Amino acid sequence: MQLTGYFRSSAAWRVRIALAWKGVAYETAFVHLTRDGGEQHGPAYRAKNPAGLVPYLEDGGLGFGQSLAMLEYLEETHPEPPLLPADPAARAKVREIALAIACDIHPLNNLRVLSHLTGRLGRSEAEKLAWYRHWVAVGFDAIEALLPETAAEAGCCCGEQVSLADVCLVPQVFNARRFECPLDAYPKIRAVDARLSALPAFYETAPEGQPDAA
Amino acid sequence: MQLTGYFRSSAAWRVRIALAWKGVAYETAFVHLTRDGGEQHGPAYRAKNPAGLVPYLEDGGLGFGQSLAMLEYLEETHPEPPLLPADPAARAKVREIALAIACDIHPLNNLRVLSHLTGRLGRSEAEKLAWYRHWVAVGFDAIEALLPETAAEAGCCCGEQVSLADVCLVPQVFNARRFECPLDAYPKIRAVDARLSALPAFYETAPEGQPDAA
Repeated sequence: MQLTGYFRSSAAWRVRIALAWKGVAYETAFVHLTRDGGEQHGPAYRAKNPAGLVPYLEDGGLGFGQSLAMLEYLEETHPEPPLLPADPAARAKVREIALAIACDIHPLNNLRVLSHLTGRLGRSEAEKLAWYRHWVAVGFDAIEALLPETAAEAGCCCGEQVSLADVCLVPQVFNARRFECPLDAYPKIRAVDARLSALPAFYETAPEGQPDAA
Repeated sequence: MQLTGYFRSSAAWRVRIALAWKGVAYETAFVHLTRDGGEQHGPAYRAKNPAGLVPYLEDGGLGFGQSLAMLEYLEETHPEPPLLPADPAARAKVREIALAIACDIHPLNNLRVLSHLTGRLGRSEAEKLAWYRHWVAVGFDAIEALLPETAAEAGCCCGEQVSLADVCLVPQVFNARRFECPLDAYPKIRAVDARLSALPAFYETAPEGQPDAA
């Protein structure tokens, strides 16, 4: 298996966490999202991944984008240790939180959108930061309410078991801190993040330790 | 089962298609996203769904948001007729396209983001439309390239079987037409949309036929 990523991509970090959690060996490749105007726009990478985004996962003859598709694929092909519970209702609640991050926060705040705001739309750095923090606040308000009261004590989003919700949450919290988003209103999110960040599958795959972190 | 939706929500339409495809009986409830400033912001709905978005699915004691979580839940609890192939590699390709819509296009163009652009950011109607069309073009460029050459003839996104990719594509094409996005560059997308739109599970669940369509 080969994962093409970028150290600062929180979507790529999700997949690194899942691979580490399941103990799957893989090769790494890197696409630098800002150098030379963005290597993801080059014809070589576009021929492989027309969306021009990271991450990209290859396994034998299969290659595909979309980090959530990768997480589901890893769960299906390497079910142990699981990142989804067995019960469909519990799986739905895990996916609800994972998607609240992957659909409602991250797509609004990734590099291409921020570049579009400051480039094509001519917005200032301050307006870009306000945009970023707005969508983190809207998303975290919802997630803090969705997390069960037991989450802080359990140290993970859903029940007692680390899940795809956690795999998505930790990189999003990392990004929120990088953009200095206020997190005081989210004690459950902060408690879950603190506990998970102490687990090797999370801290060993963190952005700053990646080979392409300049 | 009860689905809370809004006739113009393409995310809600995805779930209506899947329910119809699988022949699942369900009750409907409606949240009007623009009347009185948006019923989704009211305390009654927020208590149920803190994200304040539609759709929302309830099944017995279970209730959750996020349309993709609903599609996976329906696939797990009502596997026939399937909307995912059996092979993990084929499932990954279906989810790649579904998520290219659900993560890379729709979250940038839904009502709350468009309202934020014209409200908080003070952008004009023309700038809002340009934003909408930009992200549809970026997303459809990728999806047109991702669709196999056989898609136009097969009349669905992946292989010979209607899948979650199709369930996401048709509502997105509908929205693109509503905002007058140019579609000439996407012959595969248009062919798939034309064939699928002739199937009852798609046209019987279309926005204009919903009880809350004013």
